[in-house]
Amino acid sequence: MADAASIKRVAQRIVDTKGRGAEVVVVISAMGDTTDELMDLALEVSPQPRPRELDMLLTAGERMSAALLAMAINDLGFEARSFTGSQAGVITTGTHGDARIIDITPGRIRTALEDGDIVIVAGFQGVSQTSKDVTTLGRGASDTTAVALAASLGADYCEIYSDVDGVFTADPRIVPGASRIPEISYEEMLEMAAQGAKILHLRCVEYARRENVPVHVRSSFSTRPGTWVKDIEYRNTEGRELEGMEQPLITGVAHDRSESKITVVGVPDRIGAAAEVFSAVADAGVNIDMIVQNQSIADDNTAITFTLPGGDKLRALDALHGARERIGFTEIQYDDAIGKVSVIGVGMRSHPGVSATFFRALAEAGINIQMISTSEIRISVVVGTDDVDAAVRAAHTAFGLDSVTGEAVVYAGTGR
Amino acid sequence: MADAASIKRVAQRIVDTKGRGAEVVVVISAMGDTTDELMDLALEVSPQPRPRELDMLLTAGERMSAALLAMAINDLGFEARSFTGSQAGVITTGTHGDARIIDITPGRIRTALEDGDIVIVAGFQGVSQTSKDVTTLGRGASDTTAVALAASLGADYCEIYSDVDGVFTADPRIVPGASRIPEISYEEMLEMAAQGAKILHLRCVEYARRENVPVHVRSSFSTRPGTWVKDIEYRNTEGRELEGMEQPLITGVAHDRSESKITVVGVPDRIGAAAEVFSAVADAGVNIDMIVQNQSIADDNTAITFTLPGGDKLRALDALHGARERIGFTEIQYDDAIGKVSVIGVGMRSHPGVSATFFRALAEAGINIQMISTSEIRISVVVGTDDVDAAVRAAHTAFGLDSVTGEAVVYAGTGR
Repeated sequence: MADAASIKRVAQRIVDTKGRGAEVVVVISAMGDTTDELMDLALEVSPQPRPRELDMLLTAGERMSAALLAMAINDLGFEARSFTGSQAGVITTGTHGDARIIDITPGRIRTALEDGDIVIVAGFQGVSQTSKDVTTLGRGASDTTAVALAASLGADYCEIYSDVDGVFTADPRIVPGASRIPEISYEEMLEMAAQGAKILHLRCVEYARRENVPVHVRSSFSTRPGTWVKDIEYRNTEGRELEGMEQPLITGVAHDRSESKITVVGVPDRIGAAAEVFSAVADAGVNIDMIVQNQSIADDNTAITFTLPGGDKLRALDALHGARERIGFTEIQYDDAIGKVSVIGVGMRSHPGVSATFFRALAEAGINIQMISTSEIRISVVVGTDDVDAAVRAAHTAFGLDSVTGEAVVYAGTGR
Repeated sequence: MADAASIKRVAQRIVDTKGRGAEVVVVISAMGDTTDELMDLALEVSPQPRPRELDMLLTAGERMSAALLAMAINDLGFEARSFTGSQAGVITTGTHGDARIIDITPGRIRTALEDGDIVIVAGFQGVSQTSKDVTTLGRGASDTTAVALAASLGADYCEIYSDVDGVFTADPRIVPGASRIPEISYEEMLEMAAQGAKILHLRCVEYARRENVPVHVRSSFSTRPGTWVKDIEYRNTEGRELEGMEQPLITGVAHDRSESKITVVGVPDRIGAAAEVFSAVADAGVNIDMIVQNQSIADDNTAITFTLPGGDKLRALDALHGARERIGFTEIQYDDAIGKVSVIGVGMRSHPGVSATFFRALAEAGINIQMISTSEIRISVVVGTDDVDAAVRAAHTAFGLDSVTGEAVVYAGTGR
């Protein structure tokens, strides 16, 4: 929500839903730039604010928007009550800034619902099970709060509103012919989120899958349906897995420019050397993504290449330099000018030709592949950052995802 | 506190106090215009925001400043923890926007103090004993939170910092020769606060008197002592009340321009008519201050004049107009252009000539007195708003409160 006008618009929408007879629980994020502004204020006061105090500060943003939204709903003649994460019973671990939801004890929410009230919950926040301090779940984690609450209340589904119309087959800014995906399975959405689609957070999708909460991703600016993320049964009535035309090979193409690539050159080709490299990086608290170890050919040395979040690069480089003598490698190279492009779809489980099609499309577009990694329902490649757009477009076309209208696309999975 | 620089300055001051070995609990109000800005936002969303939601919104201000102050203290190498009113155990009535403190359960504060931490508490807020909702204590009531916490923790004293140097014998903007009062009794401070001195809230002083918490009112911009509000023993060692030169007649002169005056003309001179007038006003939720009923002389009618907070005038007028036929009065007059000037001092208990001196000084200044009211230690007059400054100056001079330097004044009460 950006301002008072947005709040009133959202209030009207909630009231419309309530008017149709539903019990409504709304999880709200902070208004516009509130969180960034609070963060700036914190950094003015202290270059490294304590995480506990930062959580106390930042949670004020959602608290304000929750109260304002409740007021706006009241103003439309409906009863609404706002709750902080703590009041809503969002119990978390004590990791300030990145807490995980352990449990939801929604006693006060249930009471408010029984009273016929619309419930507004401040997202992104909870209360530590051990210290009783206020915690946050990590930036933008209001969607996780929403799914967790939906699960604990036994809601029929969870709607997540943002400024986009749903999940698309690719980023429409790169692929004008990209189309909205009407339905997508939890597994595919997990891969999309993990591979750079920013519309839902990984943890939110994980929660939805674990608790089997259908999630409807839609725009707060229109009433059109968006994308349903849910359990999709890929079998027909006889129990055979659906094949061929009934199911597209690829559901979507995701991309991510936020990673960096590090290559450790001249690693001694002995047992345990690779483990030492990754221990050093892990001890610095860095999560790595893709890994390639080159074969030793002429000498006793090997090279290890991996990708990692760009923001962790300096920490990883520091850790590696510190471990250089112990491990005995000769050199570290790094490259920020990379991007990852992934094709994702459960259809590839039963279709062996997907990687061939993908790589051929990239080759025909003149794009060099630097690294490859795969999962059961995903193929990812690392390319130069300047090649990302072309790679996304090539994949989108190669798998028949281009459509003339934005809405004509086909997804033949059965289910809801 | 106005901004990040103020927060750092306050943090340094707190750290200095802690460095001298004290256990420190700080109650903090919102930064600068935060509360007004949040109120504006609320009114943009709803012309009459629900008090429950307004409290949820406004309490974010103190929450933010508390977290920021804790960060700033941490940054100076000291341990600090911020707490919301609810976390600090400030239990209140459920009257949103104007809750009273019922109890303090400072378990978490005690634990933090035992850990050696500096404790920062968000002022102005608490949690309703019945609904568990967030409440506020009324605008500017952070000083009440501070005194209540000091009492419940058995603190030696409570310091209240603002942008003024203490309590003065009169408003220095009106009386350049006004001087800081080094010590003042709870009773006198209560009258000063009730009669318009804005430095401490009435409820804060009431709390301090009831719990016998000495309060030191001082400036956050200097380290000079301010005014001690405390239990002052006005008796000498033989138990006789101090008299004469040892004790000034008048401790201070307060004024208040925020009231309005209403006169109900032609009230039938029968038993119960005055009660009907004030019942009508009370039913509208209006507190009245001074009352004068004129003697009937020629006819059977009387006129009743009273003062009330200016903001309540319209409600009171509405209520009176509605009750006009029932009561049978002829006319309502009102006047906003009034001011109240009060002289306050326990010394007047044993000196009968105070009112004569006061009224003579006003007469010599050519000031017409519209209404008079008195208590054991106070005499108040209502004058025209344009006469307020002159009346304050006349009283200040008449009771010998003028001093050449700002600090040379004399207060001979014994005690602390």
